Amino acid sequence: MELSCDLSERGRRARAAAVTLASATRVAKDAGLLAIADGLIERQSDILAANAKDMTDAKAAGLDEAMLDRLRLDPARVQAMAAAVRGLAAVDDPVGEIIGMKRRPNGLLAGQVRIPLGVIAMIYESRPNVTIDAAALCLKSGNAVLLRGGKEARRSNELLGELARTALVRVGLAEDAVQVLPPLGREELKVLIGLTGLIDLLIPRGGEGLIRFVTEHARVPVVQHYKGVCHLYIDGAADLDMALALTENGKMSRPGVCNALECVLVHESVAGAFLPRLETLVKRGLEVRGDASTVAILPVAIPANENDWGQEFLARVLAVKVVPDYAAAVAHIRQYGSQHSEAICTNDHRIAERFLREVDASCVLVNASTRFNDGGELGLGAEIGISTSKLHAYGPMGLASLTALKWIVHGDGQVR
Amino acid sequence: MELSCDLSERGRRARAAAVTLASATRVAKDAGLLAIADGLIERQSDILAANAKDMTDAKAAGLDEAMLDRLRLDPARVQAMAAAVRGLAAVDDPVGEIIGMKRRPNGLLAGQVRIPLGVIAMIYESRPNVTIDAAALCLKSGNAVLLRGGKEARRSNELLGELARTALVRVGLAEDAVQVLPPLGREELKVLIGLTGLIDLLIPRGGEGLIRFVTEHARVPVVQHYKGVCHLYIDGAADLDMALALTENGKMSRPGVCNALECVLVHESVAGAFLPRLETLVKRGLEVRGDASTVAILPVAIPANENDWGQEFLARVLAVKVVPDYAAAVAHIRQYGSQHSEAICTNDHRIAERFLREVDASCVLVNASTRFNDGGELGLGAEIGISTSKLHAYGPMGLASLTALKWIVHGDGQVR
Repeated sequence: MELSCDLSERGRRARAAAVTLASATRVAKDAGLLAIADGLIERQSDILAANAKDMTDAKAAGLDEAMLDRLRLDPARVQAMAAAVRGLAAVDDPVGEIIGMKRRPNGLLAGQVRIPLGVIAMIYESRPNVTIDAAALCLKSGNAVLLRGGKEARRSNELLGELARTALVRVGLAEDAVQVLPPLGREELKVLIGLTGLIDLLIPRGGEGLIRFVTEHARVPVVQHYKGVCHLYIDGAADLDMALALTENGKMSRPGVCNALECVLVHESVAGAFLPRLETLVKRGLEVRGDASTVAILPVAIPANENDWGQEFLARVLAVKVVPDYAAAVAHIRQYGSQHSEAICTNDHRIAERFLREVDASCVLVNASTRFNDGGELGLGAEIGISTSKLHAYGPMGLASLTALKWIVHGDGQVR
Repeated sequence: MELSCDLSERGRRARAAAVTLASATRVAKDAGLLAIADGLIERQSDILAANAKDMTDAKAAGLDEAMLDRLRLDPARVQAMAAAVRGLAAVDDPVGEIIGMKRRPNGLLAGQVRIPLGVIAMIYESRPNVTIDAAALCLKSGNAVLLRGGKEARRSNELLGELARTALVRVGLAEDAVQVLPPLGREELKVLIGLTGLIDLLIPRGGEGLIRFVTEHARVPVVQHYKGVCHLYIDGAADLDMALALTENGKMSRPGVCNALECVLVHESVAGAFLPRLETLVKRGLEVRGDASTVAILPVAIPANENDWGQEFLARVLAVKVVPDYAAAVAHIRQYGSQHSEAICTNDHRIAERFLREVDASCVLVNASTRFNDGGELGLGAEIGISTSKLHAYGPMGLASLTALKWIVHGDGQVR
């Protein structure tokens, strides 16, 4: 097979850059971040011109409005990217942090130091801001990064990658620490995700098809970000004003994101009081797909079919089900949830504590919107993805998730 | 293909057991551990009889002495297994620990709680004590475990597995939390390591061939334990008495283990003073394979060939090389090391600090034996393996490595 670029060679160059970046000082890395931010502002018109060409092609190719919105850059979005990169320069360097250093009984002093993972590969679609976000997070955490964006964003991503590399050179860091790969076909993608020894972590972000392909074929370690099928359980002891606010925020604020709400489960004792309130949201464009009990109480609801449970609608569509009790709600979440974000609305302390313990998701919330499962909202600064599997990271992946802990031992000649 | 057991069914039963075990109290789990320890003592003669049959077959099959030693159980080893299990009952429950709970600016209280991973699959060879160690570590951390030992230890492992399951039943826990699988051929192994959704973590421990097979074919997350090619760099500023003691302990105390020393790198300024001291070890059975400079100083050394660098000898064989400076030592380690355990002997503070920073291994030691890269020695209690890749765990994996952190959020109606 003829490859559009020599992926092994790209990997080796990333590995070499990672070795130098691992020992770069915070001063150097932050200077690199500020140079990237400056570059974004200086070259804003070039960026917008490249993006406009991508947009023209994407429209001609018939991409839907949600995809076009994710692809689109404008001055405000470019400036927000620059501000986020500057923000990252202001946070502590995760690398070098010493953890749990303790004197052992034999006098050894042993603990762990935080180090970069090495080379991160990121596979994503559409949004060109991911190119800069990921490059900046990897630079701050001392990792090299291979970026494979979608073909629809090719020109935007190439320009943003060049800009980042120029910034690295400007401050004396290895430019190969950031490499934007050309759009790759599935066969080339297989080569990339098979580069054992050259890639330390692969982060796929995209549709379910992409994630499944990567899981099936990857030989390098992967942290997955599956779909977000998020539920809100409205308990019998819920404050119904709050329940409506959480439903509205979860579903209506940004229906296309992974922490948006897809399904509301309502305790039968409050179904009669709560469900009619959803009419205000229906008037604002919400489509409710309800079980028989829901439709009986809320006639504007469309009868749900089996496919509506566990569905990530990514639109103003909400599945609604009346449940007889707490156990039925948790069982539904266990069957249909995607271990992303699960919330309960209740004033019953014991039920709230049980929900926190018994529901298995990367983020479990009591009386709060599922939209809070986000690195920025949870205090991680920025995030490179949200893991829905438990290995290495579960939930938003911030700077610390791009590092490992290495044991260091200081002795004075100890032997066993 | 006809399987020797229905692996999917075994996985589903493990998953169901894991769900109940995740919310088991520490009291119940510790009672299970003590029941396992009691069972080991009560059934000691049965265990030794089963093991004796395994040993007879293994000898007939021509297994080497190192393998036979790992396979062999005796009263002292059985009692040590029981003592280790009792020890685990005495340590804190890792599950339920709350980490980093903080009030966010909007009033949300957000942090993380430690939870079990779910279902662990362990693939290992020879040593039947791993069956009990792994079962105990997984029980304490609230995980179900599928154990696939080697066929040479079949009878020992089956009996130990039955004993653990009986103990679980005795204390009211799900017996399917511990399942010893029959010895599996490579095709069956492929089925096991492809059980996505049923296995949360796969830990292979064994020869390089097994690890490579698993890496190539696994579809479930793997934490690898590759070979240990451990180096000791004797710097120009080393205390040579200490250097000899570290060499002796690293190589001679247990040559067959992964944290044993395989190669010593000697700074040329101390080669003339240090190398002749190795003669005392040669007299005790050490074979030295040296580069030309080493052989010139230590004539009993055999000339090394290129294969001796990076070799895990698992025997009383030591590769020795004279290096011109610190940089050459670190370059050698980078080229030939296996990121397991790397040590330096020096009294030069700056060189020691550089070595700790610049060498990439799961454990980097100054003036201490590589043999200390061990969960017990580093204060983790027990270990289920030593990871030589950085994702999820790097170095000895104790109880915490069998858990994940789930975000929990307490709100009062917050929305974004």
